[in-house]
Amino acid sequence: MGDYYAVIMAGGGGTRLWPLSRKDRPKQSLKLLGDRTMFQLSVERLTPLFSPERILVVTSAAYAADLHRQCPSLPEANFVLEPAPKGTAPAIALSALAIRRRDPGGLMACLTADHFIGDEARFRDVLAAAAQVAGRGFLVTLGIKPTYPSTGYGYIQRGAGLRTLGEWEVYQAARFKEKPKLSEAEAMVADGLHSWNSGMFIWRVERILAEFARQMPEFHEQLLGSQAAPESLARIWANAPTTTIDYGIMEGADEVAVIPADGLQWSDIGSWESLLEVLAPDEAGNIVVGAEHLGLGTTGSLIHSSRGARRLIATIGVSNLVIVDTGDVLLICPRERSQEVRAVVEQLKQRRDGAGYL
Amino acid sequence: MGDYYAVIMAGGGGTRLWPLSRKDRPKQSLKLLGDRTMFQLSVERLTPLFSPERILVVTSAAYAADLHRQCPSLPEANFVLEPAPKGTAPAIALSALAIRRRDPGGLMACLTADHFIGDEARFRDVLAAAAQVAGRGFLVTLGIKPTYPSTGYGYIQRGAGLRTLGEWEVYQAARFKEKPKLSEAEAMVADGLHSWNSGMFIWRVERILAEFARQMPEFHEQLLGSQAAPESLARIWANAPTTTIDYGIMEGADEVAVIPADGLQWSDIGSWESLLEVLAPDEAGNIVVGAEHLGLGTTGSLIHSSRGARRLIATIGVSNLVIVDTGDVLLICPRERSQEVRAVVEQLKQRRDGAGYL
Repeated sequence: MGDYYAVIMAGGGGTRLWPLSRKDRPKQSLKLLGDRTMFQLSVERLTPLFSPERILVVTSAAYAADLHRQCPSLPEANFVLEPAPKGTAPAIALSALAIRRRDPGGLMACLTADHFIGDEARFRDVLAAAAQVAGRGFLVTLGIKPTYPSTGYGYIQRGAGLRTLGEWEVYQAARFKEKPKLSEAEAMVADGLHSWNSGMFIWRVERILAEFARQMPEFHEQLLGSQAAPESLARIWANAPTTTIDYGIMEGADEVAVIPADGLQWSDIGSWESLLEVLAPDEAGNIVVGAEHLGLGTTGSLIHSSRGARRLIATIGVSNLVIVDTGDVLLICPRERSQEVRAVVEQLKQRRDGAGYL
Repeated sequence: MGDYYAVIMAGGGGTRLWPLSRKDRPKQSLKLLGDRTMFQLSVERLTPLFSPERILVVTSAAYAADLHRQCPSLPEANFVLEPAPKGTAPAIALSALAIRRRDPGGLMACLTADHFIGDEARFRDVLAAAAQVAGRGFLVTLGIKPTYPSTGYGYIQRGAGLRTLGEWEVYQAARFKEKPKLSEAEAMVADGLHSWNSGMFIWRVERILAEFARQMPEFHEQLLGSQAAPESLARIWANAPTTTIDYGIMEGADEVAVIPADGLQWSDIGSWESLLEVLAPDEAGNIVVGAEHLGLGTTGSLIHSSRGARRLIATIGVSNLVIVDTGDVLLICPRERSQEVRAVVEQLKQRRDGAGYL
């Protein structure tokens, strides 16, 4: 078996954490949890399972320099640049080829750059277990125990049990279901047979490239051709289908396994409220990040500032409030309505003078 | 009868409107209501009843230059400087002497610099009426119709009716009662015989100086002496009693009249909530001063910013919230708890690094 590589997918944008996340400042570059960016945390939690030489980053040229500044220990050659965002499928194919050049027998773990994982030792343990399964030829997905009937996540139905590795159970993946209707989601959470799709995958590079050859043959062939003629990549990329690895490959793939990766304390931090769920509150029940805070009768609130020192946020008698101060924008909303920042972002897009805040 | 002078008492400090009001930035210098400071509004609403030459300002040396910058039309000589804050009684005596030097028969209206008055024409009308009464030798106070049993204001009990001037009724003042207990306040509001003491007084300078001579003879004599030897004022001032005109003079004075000055839309703006009560809300029911605001489902809230342009305050789903942003401090509290900024100020006084926010 070849070496084990991690590929951190760090090309995403998104405004769910506006006003901190912006067009030019995606979630992976934010210091949501303290003094380290999400990307830094994503890289650092891989040690000691992966050395910096074995950690690749797939992202756009626009983000690469900033990401490299965040993690200068990563070799510059490990940044795999997508010519444009095309979803996770093309990005993973490009990364798989980059690894195959180094090690035709290599294994790769495709990981996210913008998720919270509370138990990092446990995370490395399941990645190590997944490598064992991937070495046997499986496409392995990490599942997450669903805690509510989300209609925004994908679900994986577990099939027959395959084996046990330490405390991890490995199952055949019977079915993928992306973004279900609420009734479907409720049924899947209730039946105890489904995991959320974490978007994290482990496989041999040869194995996933074989799936690309079978399921996306035209793109695969062109991409192979670009390996000898890098100047052709941008053109190939422009013609590539925009699709996720889930839709483009996993749903039609053979020999797919799922490992329920329970206990990771995983969260995709899809809203400000979710930060309140993953971080440990202080004695008063609040989470204060980057702010000098003085609270009287203040509970259950998130106070997040990127303003730095010599700026006091004083709150009196507020509960379950989200307060985010980026300097140019101040957001205040109840935690249970923090999803509605999308509506604010939409309004700003309509405003003549709103672009500066996006 | 001599000329009619206004004396604006602008020496006060106070932190009830923290974080906007500060040690070095008292309420009278704040742009609470828009683009004019409270002091500017206090001066401007006197036109055309008083010309700038007839408007005096009594304040401390520390504030005088700033106040003069705010109202450069006032002659510099009209700024009467207290060597130190000693309450309104000494300040009024000093101002009365300054007027008497110009016009021994002069009348003076002692006015506040930090109150809101919605109906300015009506205010000038009652000042003109009060001058008629003061010219007959009365010490005239303007009363305010009480709207709730405040324990923080003074109350004046009306006695016999004296006369009618236009739409103003003039009464003998039967009794002064400062800062009553709640039960007393409730009784005084209920009996319909009491007005709040507005802190605004009108009298002949000779008449009020005679009261000083009778009730505070030592201070009066020393102050008279300083008129020929200005260098002695600081020493006299250091020995002067610290007292308000209400305690020091009015409670023991003869021939005191009260004019219920109803309909002025008066407020002392003693808290952030009171700003919400005096300003007209926008269509969404909010009051936005100095801020660029985008609100979704936001009602009954005050958004007050002194940060200037290119700073967005976005609120989602909040009601009856006070949001004050001064740049170095952000305050967030429910409107009904805005009095509690005092508690925040007290905590900051205890903090080693809190002084910068006071």
